[in-house]
Amino acid sequence: MLKEWEKSEKPSEEEIKARLEAVKEKLARQQLLIKEKKVPVLVVLEGWGTAGKGYAIGQIIQNIDPRFFKVVSMQKKTEDDKRKPFLYRHFVKIPEAGQFVFLDTAWMDEITEERLHGTISEDVYANRIESVRRFERQLTDNGYLVMKFFLHISKKEQSRRIAQLEHQKDTTWRVSKKDLWQNEHYEKCMDVFSGYLKNTNMPSAPWYIIDAKSRKWTEVQILETLTQGIEIALSNHQMVVPLLQNVFPLKKMPLLCDIPLDKCMEEDVYKKELKQLQQRLGELHNRLYRKKVPVIIAYEGWDAAGKGGNIKRITGALDPRGYEVHPIASPEPHEKARHYLWRFWTRLPRTGHIAIFDRTWYGRVMVERLEGFCSENDWMRAYNEINEFEKELHDWGAVIIKFWVQIDKDTQLARFTDRQNTPEKQWKITEEDWRNRDKWDAYEGAVNEMIQKTSTTYAPWHILESVDKKYARIKALRIVIAELEKVLD
Amino acid sequence: MLKEWEKSEKPSEEEIKARLEAVKEKLARQQLLIKEKKVPVLVVLEGWGTAGKGYAIGQIIQNIDPRFFKVVSMQKKTEDDKRKPFLYRHFVKIPEAGQFVFLDTAWMDEITEERLHGTISEDVYANRIESVRRFERQLTDNGYLVMKFFLHISKKEQSRRIAQLEHQKDTTWRVSKKDLWQNEHYEKCMDVFSGYLKNTNMPSAPWYIIDAKSRKWTEVQILETLTQGIEIALSNHQMVVPLLQNVFPLKKMPLLCDIPLDKCMEEDVYKKELKQLQQRLGELHNRLYRKKVPVIIAYEGWDAAGKGGNIKRITGALDPRGYEVHPIASPEPHEKARHYLWRFWTRLPRTGHIAIFDRTWYGRVMVERLEGFCSENDWMRAYNEINEFEKELHDWGAVIIKFWVQIDKDTQLARFTDRQNTPEKQWKITEEDWRNRDKWDAYEGAVNEMIQKTSTTYAPWHILESVDKKYARIKALRIVIAELEKVLD
Repeated sequence: MLKEWEKSEKPSEEEIKARLEAVKEKLARQQLLIKEKKVPVLVVLEGWGTAGKGYAIGQIIQNIDPRFFKVVSMQKKTEDDKRKPFLYRHFVKIPEAGQFVFLDTAWMDEITEERLHGTISEDVYANRIESVRRFERQLTDNGYLVMKFFLHISKKEQSRRIAQLEHQKDTTWRVSKKDLWQNEHYEKCMDVFSGYLKNTNMPSAPWYIIDAKSRKWTEVQILETLTQGIEIALSNHQMVVPLLQNVFPLKKMPLLCDIPLDKCMEEDVYKKELKQLQQRLGELHNRLYRKKVPVIIAYEGWDAAGKGGNIKRITGALDPRGYEVHPIASPEPHEKARHYLWRFWTRLPRTGHIAIFDRTWYGRVMVERLEGFCSENDWMRAYNEINEFEKELHDWGAVIIKFWVQIDKDTQLARFTDRQNTPEKQWKITEEDWRNRDKWDAYEGAVNEMIQKTSTTYAPWHILESVDKKYARIKALRIVIAELEKVLD
Repeated sequence: MLKEWEKSEKPSEEEIKARLEAVKEKLARQQLLIKEKKVPVLVVLEGWGTAGKGYAIGQIIQNIDPRFFKVVSMQKKTEDDKRKPFLYRHFVKIPEAGQFVFLDTAWMDEITEERLHGTISEDVYANRIESVRRFERQLTDNGYLVMKFFLHISKKEQSRRIAQLEHQKDTTWRVSKKDLWQNEHYEKCMDVFSGYLKNTNMPSAPWYIIDAKSRKWTEVQILETLTQGIEIALSNHQMVVPLLQNVFPLKKMPLLCDIPLDKCMEEDVYKKELKQLQQRLGELHNRLYRKKVPVIIAYEGWDAAGKGGNIKRITGALDPRGYEVHPIASPEPHEKARHYLWRFWTRLPRTGHIAIFDRTWYGRVMVERLEGFCSENDWMRAYNEINEFEKELHDWGAVIIKFWVQIDKDTQLARFTDRQNTPEKQWKITEEDWRNRDKWDAYEGAVNEMIQKTSTTYAPWHILESVDKKYARIKALRIVIAELEKVLD
């Protein structure tokens, strides 16, 4: 893409000055609308070393109130980053609604570096591209404006800048080994950059190649493109996004009403099995720690179905240094202001660790759907978005185990009443539980749809029949053990 | 302290079982009160390698609902940690109100390791102890319950456990080099541990030494001590904390009413100076980046005093990769639930970077004081707490520059009216600004007290006379340049 690109003629100094003046004012006005309409804006600056990405960002932000933006420079991967999925460190930085985030190089830089130095295979590269395309599309589908700029300079111009920077003591440090390497291997880099730009040039988040030879002209090109993008985003704000077809293989699952709930277990059998299974799970935990396998266990189910007690029987077998339970309530304001998966990305386990979610990202297609916290288009899109999210985790090497804890309506009533009447259990029952109970049928419909649409082969749902909680606990332990054995043996 | 310690007799198995049963129930009841009374509980487990810290935490948390606690294991310092003050990675982990945090080793482990391996000098060690004492006292003064346990075993017992773990393939990895080193240098470690415990044994956060030879007995000792601590904390909850005398040297400062506000600057002089000073600041920014000096610039001042424009003239000179502006509004719920300095600790710059705060931690002694968001005891204590906080930053090597942007009441009125009448400025003025204006005299009193009590020699206030904004901008630039030159030249 870079190779076919032809630069347009640079205007006169006077024209540049006038256009710069005009576009700065435009941006200053737009920042208030961005705030007001709660649009999140992600601006990515990529490009050749010494092309002036930092300088350009420095100029742009002069026109924006500091309350409305953040600048994030790419840092070396930390040990923690290395133990998270590839997209983790990028996903966590996305702006909140009404804010700008400027990225001084981002995932393109990371991927093309890996490609140039052969640290990833063709296959991994292809996967990365797929991940990036999904990631950017999920952002734009969820109302993000994503503006991607590539600052382009010629080999000759790059050499000139390197020489100039090296000339002065205070700027020598700005010339990195990477800049020198790029300049030496300019054609090879050009190939890789061009390929990447082409592969990730999508209608909802296209690439803009910027002629970066002159500083002021660079600024004009970026600002004019950015403000045009904002203009479109502001008018598109309430647009309905097309639903993508799910491309992941699904497993056939039963409807909730077809699941027999008469399963139970004797107390003494339970006690014996529990002890054996917990010991086995403890051993496996040690091994997955050593083998650095990340594990994600997701619990959903009816109120009072017995999620808490079930989770306790899992954690009772685990070393507390190697797992974390994340109870998921309604999002905090800074979480609500971002993509709904953000607060789960930030809670992913490191490799070798287990994260247990007590309620999950499936809230999108249950409570958020039924209470109208998101639009119809939002939750209908979410099945595929969630399948993509779990695919990402699966490709990273995670074991994903999803439990639906099932009881019938009568059992729930009995447990609610018991909670109501037992002083030390009263905190567990709220008005909201009763209100949700009134919507049982609507929830059942939503859960059925969810289970059908998100039981992928790589992350299927498991039903835990929990009228007898003992039965459900033993079943959960067995499933967890079986799934871990699959990857560890 | 460890050396003088004598273990009490271990009770019979039966007694242990009965006591364990009783104390578990007690903790299960207390967790709800902790939640209800919003007490934050920090439980620190330190001790010999293989003493069973992880196991003990695993047992304790079985009695607490996963929504009410977090377990944090100490990790190797990341590159980012190394570029933050020593206490940073510990401070950011403190629990929020109504929650438990269990630390599987913490700052004691870090400091004693450094001491044992001679990576810090006597002086630095003494400073660390001072920091820890202040840190823990600030937590308990602000309503935190801090429970510190040291799990003690003999040299012989440690050898036995190491041998046992090494015997099995799946547990070999649990024996660290550190455990082996400790066992080899048991007496030396004993000296250092004992000294540390003594130095940091404070009435509000004492050390509890636990005989950790038997697992169940260990659990009983910890749980009984912890539940006693919680009992006291729950009844002390609204206690008034003694005010500590400020031990830091203060600079004499003028009262606001004695500051002449007639300073001004001609447009052409301003333009010329601005250009020169910004260029100089840009050069210094490069140098402090290379020398890895962290810089903190704090802005406070009247509404409409011109803080925003002043900050812009500073940032206009800086490379955006090396600074961040933090606009400080009222705290988010997860911030409000923690020590009021937490949200500033989490925003500290890395070494070599500049953090600019548009409003700051001084909110505690201004808006929070005057609007009654904290108690009288809270804000009266805050002067010393803030001086301690800034001392910590200073000792870390940070340059701290604090600006009070000063105007008179008439100037404010003129600017408010102008904002009101200019469409593109209207977002800058709110009802709250007018309400604050009505309290001008109360604020002036609070600001005077704040400036007198927190102008330490290492972090004094600078007054920016900002009736003429140009004058104030140039003065700010000059001060920042002068302060940076002091450390860079």
